Amino acid sequence: MKYSTQDKLTIVGAAGMIGSNMAQTALMMKLTPNICLYDPFAPALEGVAEELFHCGFEGANITFTSDIEEALSGASYIISSGGAARKAGMTREDLLKGNAQIAMQLGKDIRTYCPDVKHVTVIFNPADITGLIVLLYSGLKPSQVSTLAALDSTRLQTELAKYFKVPTDKILNSRTYGGHGEQMAVFASTTTIDGTPLNELIGTEKMPRQDWDDLRQRVIQGGKHIIELRGRSSFQSPAYLSVEMIAAAMGGRPFRWPAGVYVSQGKYNHIMMAMETSISENGISYKEPAGTPAEQKDLEESYSHLCKLRDEVIAMEILPPVNRWNELNPHIR
Amino acid sequence: MKYSTQDKLTIVGAAGMIGSNMAQTALMMKLTPNICLYDPFAPALEGVAEELFHCGFEGANITFTSDIEEALSGASYIISSGGAARKAGMTREDLLKGNAQIAMQLGKDIRTYCPDVKHVTVIFNPADITGLIVLLYSGLKPSQVSTLAALDSTRLQTELAKYFKVPTDKILNSRTYGGHGEQMAVFASTTTIDGTPLNELIGTEKMPRQDWDDLRQRVIQGGKHIIELRGRSSFQSPAYLSVEMIAAAMGGRPFRWPAGVYVSQGKYNHIMMAMETSISENGISYKEPAGTPAEQKDLEESYSHLCKLRDEVIAMEILPPVNRWNELNPHIR
Repeated sequence: MKYSTQDKLTIVGAAGMIGSNMAQTALMMKLTPNICLYDPFAPALEGVAEELFHCGFEGANITFTSDIEEALSGASYIISSGGAARKAGMTREDLLKGNAQIAMQLGKDIRTYCPDVKHVTVIFNPADITGLIVLLYSGLKPSQVSTLAALDSTRLQTELAKYFKVPTDKILNSRTYGGHGEQMAVFASTTTIDGTPLNELIGTEKMPRQDWDDLRQRVIQGGKHIIELRGRSSFQSPAYLSVEMIAAAMGGRPFRWPAGVYVSQGKYNHIMMAMETSISENGISYKEPAGTPAEQKDLEESYSHLCKLRDEVIAMEILPPVNRWNELNPHIR
Repeated sequence: MKYSTQDKLTIVGAAGMIGSNMAQTALMMKLTPNICLYDPFAPALEGVAEELFHCGFEGANITFTSDIEEALSGASYIISSGGAARKAGMTREDLLKGNAQIAMQLGKDIRTYCPDVKHVTVIFNPADITGLIVLLYSGLKPSQVSTLAALDSTRLQTELAKYFKVPTDKILNSRTYGGHGEQMAVFASTTTIDGTPLNELIGTEKMPRQDWDDLRQRVIQGGKHIIELRGRSSFQSPAYLSVEMIAAAMGGRPFRWPAGVYVSQGKYNHIMMAMETSISENGISYKEPAGTPAEQKDLEESYSHLCKLRDEVIAMEILPPVNRWNELNPHIR
């Protein structure tokens, strides 16, 4: 079995649980033999590299470094899970500021060391914001930067499969858009359950309205639930899905879920958020999701929430005001 | 992409780091859609199952249970990483006894709930001993039970690649046999470095004898080194390699490394240890490795060490004396 490409894929944050899983996943998917692992925490990074060597992947050329210049030079693809985790005593703002600064530096480093990179997928939280910052500072085109948003949609699929007691494959086109977490917009109108539109089931005896509301809450709390059950944040699913995104960007199988994308047309502007997207060798493109008036309203609220987060980052002076974005990145209108 | 088989694969110990990686790996390899996750620790098990659901694997039929009868009923393949970890204050004997008892119960459960299982791979430590116990109590044929031994050989490959500064693919047929850890027999005579037999390099300026001895020590300490670097035991490489073993047992790609197998002919008898093996739909078979007189001596010492461990388990009355094994499992001569 051959590798899809020889292009260099750099995994930023490779010493962590998500990053190390990404590396294994990318090697198993045979995306490219040329995988570079980067992490500032050198001992754990070496430990991860050793583990991957010990898997004995044929033809693999795994390198690892704590030097960002070495890591990014020549990279065609980047996945970054390299944010900081929330620590005791840290406020939400502390976390936002810390990860926003990490994203700013990553964007600058991309501009300096690999301006010819083809695609970058950013997954550290809040991913819509960190992805936006990376986009602006890297100078890349909006089509070249995506963020992980699929987990909310796969969690919706999972909860619907459990509720209706059908295999997950019977739940088609489950979709959430906008932001992540509390403020996501859960769409019912796109989804079918074993061929029946979900909206025809909600409010009937097959799915009373209250059950649907409860289910949406479980989707929103999906990440928190993993922590409660497993004692650690989810890492397998974000790693796997983000590598699927990069596989699509390499020209592989189309990515089947929404992704976060830079949006600036119609009623949503100067924001990165989950839309109906496709990812191919030409990068990420999107269309605005259709939905019921109530769903559109949810999406507008989600957008407003993201704008507030973005404006916080502007107030922190990590991003310039929107009207000066074009100076930072001429691809941004 | 289709699954290789519809046969049920049960992962025992699926809530742990190794088991959860195995499940992801098996699904990514498309071995079978029918994966059953078993672990006595129900909350973490559910957390792992959720993570796998959230990956959105198409066509997957992932089930999970803390009921061993449900887990094993109908299973065609089993991988078990379900041993206990060494805890503070535990002696080596405590650990051996604990895991030997777990292996005994697993063997009995296999005999009760899935006597028609096709292949079982055991990886919890000491794997040669726990595998032997599972074999004896399950009543399976020796060809149906294998243990993970490949990590020592992949670590040898890794260290040689680093030493000679060549890609790992240039290191062919790196092999360790016998037991695992301190007592493994590291064979040099089987290995070539970019086409040159390793034995022609050892003791020359290209690899002074002391360097080879140091390298062997690094191989032996490979697992300990991962713990020092990463702060946790290796989990990605044992998970990945053991799933490769099961893939071979399902009739997939031949497994490329030594595995632990029940040995009872020639000079090695009534023991499970790493030999030159092949794994196919017909199970695991082996041949005794050829080697230099010094290597043969190392292997004999490794065998003696394993016999001592086995005899400890007999003294604990977890296994009957060797001459009564045939009563426990008529396939054992």
